[in-house]
Amino acid sequence: MSGAGVGPGVGPGVAGLLAEVADVGRDATRGGYSRYVYDDAELTLREWFTEQAERRSMEVETDRNGALWAWRHGGGPGSPGSPGAPSAVVTGSHLDSVPGGGAYDGPLGVASALAAVDLLDARGVRSERPLAVVAFPEEEGARFGVACLGSRLLTGAVDPDRARGLRDADGRTFAEVAGAAGLDVAHIGADPRRLAGIGAFVELHVEQGRGLVDLDRPVAVGSSVLGHGRWRLVVEGEGNHAGTTLMADRRDPLVAAAAVVLAVREVAARYDDARATVGRLQPVPGGTNVIASRVDLWLDARHPDDAVTAALVEQVHARAQELAAAEGCTVTLVEESYGGTVHFDGALRDRIRGVLPGAPVLATGAGHDAGVLAGAVPTAMLFTRNPSGVSHSPHEHVEDVDAEAGAVALADVLADLLGD
Amino acid sequence: MSGAGVGPGVGPGVAGLLAEVADVGRDATRGGYSRYVYDDAELTLREWFTEQAERRSMEVETDRNGALWAWRHGGGPGSPGSPGAPSAVVTGSHLDSVPGGGAYDGPLGVASALAAVDLLDARGVRSERPLAVVAFPEEEGARFGVACLGSRLLTGAVDPDRARGLRDADGRTFAEVAGAAGLDVAHIGADPRRLAGIGAFVELHVEQGRGLVDLDRPVAVGSSVLGHGRWRLVVEGEGNHAGTTLMADRRDPLVAAAAVVLAVREVAARYDDARATVGRLQPVPGGTNVIASRVDLWLDARHPDDAVTAALVEQVHARAQELAAAEGCTVTLVEESYGGTVHFDGALRDRIRGVLPGAPVLATGAGHDAGVLAGAVPTAMLFTRNPSGVSHSPHEHVEDVDAEAGAVALADVLADLLGD
Repeated sequence: MSGAGVGPGVGPGVAGLLAEVADVGRDATRGGYSRYVYDDAELTLREWFTEQAERRSMEVETDRNGALWAWRHGGGPGSPGSPGAPSAVVTGSHLDSVPGGGAYDGPLGVASALAAVDLLDARGVRSERPLAVVAFPEEEGARFGVACLGSRLLTGAVDPDRARGLRDADGRTFAEVAGAAGLDVAHIGADPRRLAGIGAFVELHVEQGRGLVDLDRPVAVGSSVLGHGRWRLVVEGEGNHAGTTLMADRRDPLVAAAAVVLAVREVAARYDDARATVGRLQPVPGGTNVIASRVDLWLDARHPDDAVTAALVEQVHARAQELAAAEGCTVTLVEESYGGTVHFDGALRDRIRGVLPGAPVLATGAGHDAGVLAGAVPTAMLFTRNPSGVSHSPHEHVEDVDAEAGAVALADVLADLLGD
Repeated sequence: MSGAGVGPGVGPGVAGLLAEVADVGRDATRGGYSRYVYDDAELTLREWFTEQAERRSMEVETDRNGALWAWRHGGGPGSPGSPGAPSAVVTGSHLDSVPGGGAYDGPLGVASALAAVDLLDARGVRSERPLAVVAFPEEEGARFGVACLGSRLLTGAVDPDRARGLRDADGRTFAEVAGAAGLDVAHIGADPRRLAGIGAFVELHVEQGRGLVDLDRPVAVGSSVLGHGRWRLVVEGEGNHAGTTLMADRRDPLVAAAAVVLAVREVAARYDDARATVGRLQPVPGGTNVIASRVDLWLDARHPDDAVTAALVEQVHARAQELAAAEGCTVTLVEESYGGTVHFDGALRDRIRGVLPGAPVLATGAGHDAGVLAGAVPTAMLFTRNPSGVSHSPHEHVEDVDAEAGAVALADVLADLLGD
């Protein structure tokens, strides 16, 4: 079952679908898009997704953790996991973005999944196995700090009480925000029955690097997700007036935090292949004429070897304590999330390579819901070429022709899996 | 005309007045108060001020720059500056705060002025000279970046076109925000006729240091305002994904900005009595898993000698350029505001010392509307003791007894000036 003879031109295509949401959640200040879970933009994208699914005669349900599942004929809500029912094939990605992100990270996977359904319909592919397109919430963790929150709840990787208590930048809890959007937050948490009904999960994602550019190919198969985590450091000092406080009398947490940012770079340099980043840093209260009383900063650290990541974070913590003490400040470090390096299911990967014989196999340094689900169900990823190599930025890009090639590849893979 | 026999117990007193607004603009996240010009909290304070003035039979007008002026009997709108009219005595301060500021910085001066009017009424002080209580907008510059914006517009120290174009953190211009609050922003700018009608301006303010604590006195007379300015530095690099971008491939503006923060501390240490602070710093876009593309940071620098401040800023700029270049980034520096060291009117100060013989004379490192007006009209300041010495912080404090002592001192000074 190959894609020969079936290709772009069926339905709106990926570019046509993305064009429909091109104005949703634009960020005039940062550029690009800011679409945070349960904000107006992300809710608009959910409505759009639901409409698109219904237009394809798919039944849409919201799971207990706020993910949207659109079931194609042959399957439906409740069917996966029913005794004796064939296991489902699931594809999809997420609709939320980082602050000032690009148009593709997340939505490309959702739009490619919808376009792949159009291709399967055009090819007349029907199956006993259910097929679902899923949109997971808070993949980026941009609002509540824990990346892949939806898939972590689904798999039980995050405690529901902890999730309910997570706060956004305005101090609102996940329970308040998700509750206001209609989720019954008393019942969030692991959903083993749903997971047991899934035979394979395939997430298509824009490539976040230049692997495919260098190889001159439009689509790759994923091999692994780099182990990564987030740690919050809180540096506390003494807030005071910037004009009346002598330099010698200061305990300025922003001076200590700046030294910590440089220490992160220095510690990361000790390890080949480590990536350590401070991209978010907030002085409190944050006035120009005010010495900060506290600085919150977040460390994103990744390495293929989990022991190296742990050592790196430990060294950053130790250095931060020295640097804070030198300024008369204190520092605390809290892990917000961590996931070790994930290697995708070998049998599924080899099967997909058989369907897409020319596709290279690439690892990714980025985190994905696929990396979380891989611990629970056979999981794979496809990557679509990004000529800029840049992501989490408005400069992230996918050519229309590559987007369609990605959807065709995904349709080919889904058709093969559904053919079981 | 002394305060003997007239004191606290007349009207609500300063503490009673401040208690009325104790719930307005509390900042649940930062602690203390966040009252930004023309936000809900500051507009509520303006309404409160207008009510309080009207309760005292004062006529309230809003000047062309959005300052509120409450005129006591004997004067009124239009009267100051009229040919032949006696010049006005003006007191007051501001209602806006820094982010997470204290209860006293600004409102203490306004409440003390209203309490002083009560004391003058109780003493039966009437005068030919008009008396006004003024509340200046955006003294802190916390919303639009230029401190003392109201008094700078009044005196012509800031260009009206520049003021109209200033933007807040949400990207809204001063023209939009002030226009929405009812100001005719086409007509903001210098108001020489109003200034010509003012014979003396006296601002009472909470002390922002421990001078009065050390001297064990409740009230001081101001001598000078330290020269100070604000500069915005924009460091630009390359935004990208925190997981997929190798350390060697980064041009991370937050790493460069952190080095600049440390350089500010280092350069300030070269000069006795210099104060240089970075209290506001914003990575853009500011996501945990995103290498920033840009960092905006603000330098607040002060020194009694304007040449030293200029040299300090020049050295920070030069170091910032080196540090940014080392990271493959660029940096620009723009002056947002600057005012040289101001010595208050000597004759007025000596006259006030005569009225308040026990009061020490203190300089201030903080900026004030009084420092701006000093270039246009005879100006003085009074400071009320702050036992914490801390300001621009929720820990700023004034004991009730000292607040009342400040109001009595202000009433004594006003009565003396009105007696001309």
